[in-house]
Amino acid sequence: MAENNYTFPHTIFTEYDKAHNVGVFTETTNHIYTEQTEYQRIDIYETPAFGKLFSLDGVIMTRDSDEFVYHEMISHVPLFIHPNPKKVLIIGGGDGGTVREVLKHDSVEKVVLCELDKKVIEAALKYLPNISYELKNPKVELVYEDGSKFVSQFKDEFDVILIDSTDPTEGEGGLLFTEKFYQNCFEALNENGVFSAQTEEPFLKKEWMVRAYRRISNTFNIARLYMGYVPQYMPGTWTWTFASKNLDPIKDFDPEKVKEFNKELKYYDEEVHVASFSLPVFVKKLISEFSK
Amino acid sequence: MAENNYTFPHTIFTEYDKAHNVGVFTETTNHIYTEQTEYQRIDIYETPAFGKLFSLDGVIMTRDSDEFVYHEMISHVPLFIHPNPKKVLIIGGGDGGTVREVLKHDSVEKVVLCELDKKVIEAALKYLPNISYELKNPKVELVYEDGSKFVSQFKDEFDVILIDSTDPTEGEGGLLFTEKFYQNCFEALNENGVFSAQTEEPFLKKEWMVRAYRRISNTFNIARLYMGYVPQYMPGTWTWTFASKNLDPIKDFDPEKVKEFNKELKYYDEEVHVASFSLPVFVKKLISEFSK
Amino acid sequence: MAENNYTFPHTIFTEYDKAHNVGVFTETTNHIYTEQTEYQRIDIYETPAFGKLFSLDGVIMTRDSDEFVYHEMISHVPLFIHPNPKKVLIIGGGDGGTVREVLKHDSVEKVVLCELDKKVIEAALKYLPNISYELKNPKVELVYEDGSKFVSQFKDEFDVILIDSTDPTEGEGGLLFTEKFYQNCFEALNENGVFSAQTEEPFLKKEWMVRAYRRISNTFNIARLYMGYVPQYMPGTWTWTFASKNLDPIKDFDPEKVKEFNKELKYYDEEVHVASFSLPVFVKKLISEFSK
Amino acid sequence: MAENNYTFPHTIFTEYDKAHNVGVFTETTNHIYTEQTEYQRIDIYETPAFGKLFSLDGVIMTRDSDEFVYHEMISHVPLFIHPNPKKVLIIGGGDGGTVREVLKHDSVEKVVLCELDKKVIEAALKYLPNISYELKNPKVELVYEDGSKFVSQFKDEFDVILIDSTDPTEGEGGLLFTEKFYQNCFEALNENGVFSAQTEEPFLKKEWMVRAYRRISNTFNIARLYMGYVPQYMPGTWTWTFASKNLDPIKDFDPEKVKEFNKELKYYDEEVHVASFSLPVFVKKLISEFSK
Repeated sequence: MAENNYTFPHTIFTEYDKAHNVGVFTETTNHIYTEQTEYQRIDIYETPAFGKLFSLDGVIMTRDSDEFVYHEMISHVPLFIHPNPKKVLIIGGGDGGTVREVLKHDSVEKVVLCELDKKVIEAALKYLPNISYELKNPKVELVYEDGSKFVSQFKDEFDVILIDSTDPTEGEGGLLFTEKFYQNCFEALNENGVFSAQTEEPFLKKEWMVRAYRRISNTFNIARLYMGYVPQYMPGTWTWTFASKNLDPIKDFDPEKVKEFNKELKYYDEEVHVASFSLPVFVKKLISEFSK
Repeated sequence: MAENNYTFPHTIFTEYDKAHNVGVFTETTNHIYTEQTEYQRIDIYETPAFGKLFSLDGVIMTRDSDEFVYHEMISHVPLFIHPNPKKVLIIGGGDGGTVREVLKHDSVEKVVLCELDKKVIEAALKYLPNISYELKNPKVELVYEDGSKFVSQFKDEFDVILIDSTDPTEGEGGLLFTEKFYQNCFEALNENGVFSAQTEEPFLKKEWMVRAYRRISNTFNIARLYMGYVPQYMPGTWTWTFASKNLDPIKDFDPEKVKEFNKELKYYDEEVHVASFSLPVFVKKLISEFSK
Repeated sequence: MAENNYTFPHTIFTEYDKAHNVGVFTETTNHIYTEQTEYQRIDIYETPAFGKLFSLDGVIMTRDSDEFVYHEMISHVPLFIHPNPKKVLIIGGGDGGTVREVLKHDSVEKVVLCELDKKVIEAALKYLPNISYELKNPKVELVYEDGSKFVSQFKDEFDVILIDSTDPTEGEGGLLFTEKFYQNCFEALNENGVFSAQTEEPFLKKEWMVRAYRRISNTFNIARLYMGYVPQYMPGTWTWTFASKNLDPIKDFDPEKVKEFNKELKYYDEEVHVASFSLPVFVKKLISEFSK
Repeated sequence: MAENNYTFPHTIFTEYDKAHNVGVFTETTNHIYTEQTEYQRIDIYETPAFGKLFSLDGVIMTRDSDEFVYHEMISHVPLFIHPNPKKVLIIGGGDGGTVREVLKHDSVEKVVLCELDKKVIEAALKYLPNISYELKNPKVELVYEDGSKFVSQFKDEFDVILIDSTDPTEGEGGLLFTEKFYQNCFEALNENGVFSAQTEEPFLKKEWMVRAYRRISNTFNIARLYMGYVPQYMPGTWTWTFASKNLDPIKDFDPEKVKEFNKELKYYDEEVHVASFSLPVFVKKLISEFSK
């Protein structure tokens, strides 16, 4: 028995950003699931600090304790702008958190979730029930395809498109960060269509944030960056870009709709909606060239 | 020569939160300064990701790359509310970043900085010139004392008091987190006096955030929590509490004063001022019992 | 897909020696088993570098890749000295590695294994088959008791006693490091009885090595420290103390018996037997006061 | 003051073996020296556990607490075999530890140290005085050259050649691990010449150990691997290969010369000399094909 030596946690999850040589770590008490799929390494851990923690290739995707921030912000900001969202396309987001938030809007009749890696959905259903439970809702259609190809077949089809992707990679940033892809999303939206994409953050990944914002901005008539407090993604800040054919995220926002919303939210409300578009000065400068 | 083995950084600064068994780490390329003073262990490192990094007892206090967020937010929110701030007391803040921001307001005639550990100021002056340079401004008076005692001798003296302290500790949280201390700050402020204190954050330290807010709220007529994106403090979010005898941080805020401000700011502007008081739903709930 | 960020292993086992602030770490690809028992935290991991790795309270106990060194050295050194070992008592050693080595001696008719924590044996049987497989040999009797109490009931009973314990703890070092315990072992051995105990190592734990050696030396007529290359135990060196009532580990050693041995060994042979008693000068000095 | 959070050391040196995804770490209290030279990154740290620690490209080269093992074993094993060593060539070894040991032999009249990187010697002289102090001995000639080229100019020149190199690299393992280099060493030795080279270790680097041993064995008439307990080099074991034109490290060894030696040694003595050639069974097997 070596109990007196047991101070530092002996089983650790580490997310290491090799571009900056910085990282975060957290104790894990169980490694619930691990699999090298055709596309990536999936891991799910039990952690004392954050509950279940889900990573792809060693990068945290979601975790019980604070996933609500990201999932509420990618969903409710565009959904409360659309006057009557019925048909929603989510690209990525295989953990199911975005689906769960989208389905809180009673007007929604159909959600198509296009996730490349079927194993992500299977793992989420089995091990992340608090996040994934709406994936089995009959309104949801699951598609296992490359989202960039999938979206290109539609025209004037969706009221809402949400891009819940992993980080961009080398070159064009992966197929979910190209201008071509954003154009296809634009085409797939109908006249009042609204769009939101995760667009990285301005401290460690400002190049990609600016690049993604610029490409979306080049494509849509309206594009606005917004921010949130997202501890699960190092360094604790995240941005999304709202875009649309004609609806403005502030001018066309009706706070009364949020006040009257009949579902519980933990992060988003009518005040947060507006405040999230008030960007720090340095972020405004980073994107000023392309701002609309 | 073992260059082919040189992938993971071999010299690492780690901030470890033993209460949650989580941490952050970053490569250091030089350990510029280290000293065990009467009060604490001071370290200053050169880091590729964040520039100079300054820690006390292994906890990051400030770093070149993003210190501006914390220092602007603790300073400008209260200073833009006061109609004519002349005399400012800062407790803690020995790195000099808060002094630097305060002195951007031309009305300020005198800043008293009360820092317990003289070595912190000496180290900042020597190794953190971008942060500390205004510590030698003739308007600044440096006092090396326990701030909780120092403030208790004043009555109706200051226009602004800023509490730029380290984390609370066991029991009452250290002398800078007690209700008695906040009462002494109240007494030391004159009629239009405004106050701001760092009050931890709502993800990993919510108990202390609520406790500090409650104590300030019990003491001052007006008390309002506000938030910012602060990557240097794990988990990337931070809060401060604005308090005053009679001035309201929203109703008495004049955005024109900020627009006309003649100094450069990187984070704070009139939009950020207002948005920072729009709290996420779960934070509102945490403090709702004591909100004013 | 974040494959380009996947360089440093994201799931890590860390053994941290808080007395010296040093540690070792290794990638784990699966956390096969974890349980907090009445006595300790048991973990078993799959690791690319070392195969299965088994730890108690975060301290490595054994691992597939190099467990043979420790298990051969604690067993064969005393067993080859005894002229005809029939009855063997092992205290600790619940992973089964020492039992496996002892049973390679055909003369052995009975092995009593006294392990405090039944869960250790259950986990080893289930997850460490290469190490534990002889625990089910009919010659083996498993006893789940405190070894220090168990041994005290015997007199002139065993030919061989092996102390395969975890690290000592505060005070007397746990019940398996006291002089009283070693005296009870002495009593439990018959006239030609031989004994071997793990006795820590001379780089990071020299105080305990000397203390254990001194206590054994005070108790037995003959006591000799010996060493081996044991990578699994930081810092890569380990010692055991051979002791007996009258047999000398060098004078009474017959190398021919080892040469004729009919089982395969990976570390121990007649040369290693002798060489392991040739101690570095600084180790000789550390124990010189008590050497026999 | 955050003293209650100060448990895990916040400044850490990590040596990470990316080939195996394993590593060691240790607290550092000061980063005394760091420089990226033309050849490599040099760092020297103060550590509580090991005193001064010196690394090249993040790999520990030497440290105060236990450098004596490596330096005594590379030096005294060959020097006590040579009947009258006068002229010694050391390739690598810029920290000076090997020079220090060699000069303990009064017969030695001249030591040529050939170190590629002058900065290593300068740093050792300035920051590692306990290791480097004999580098300024008038018997020592310092040469800053590629050792593989330098040695090729000599014929029948040296009594002793010691290869105190860093780890091998890709391909041929760097110029100090090729058969051509070992042949040049053979040529540079005179008739009674003896040789010793560091040859890695059999747990994590067995391929290189076997390769180096085979190449030396192909070149010299006599070649014998020997081992030691070397905590500073993960995983705590190290080997060297003794080689010569005609002298045998056991048959030509006179233990009386060691007993009468007039200098203090901490690891090596006549017993250790002999025992270090008694290899574990698995190591004998690894090199059996080439053993002489």
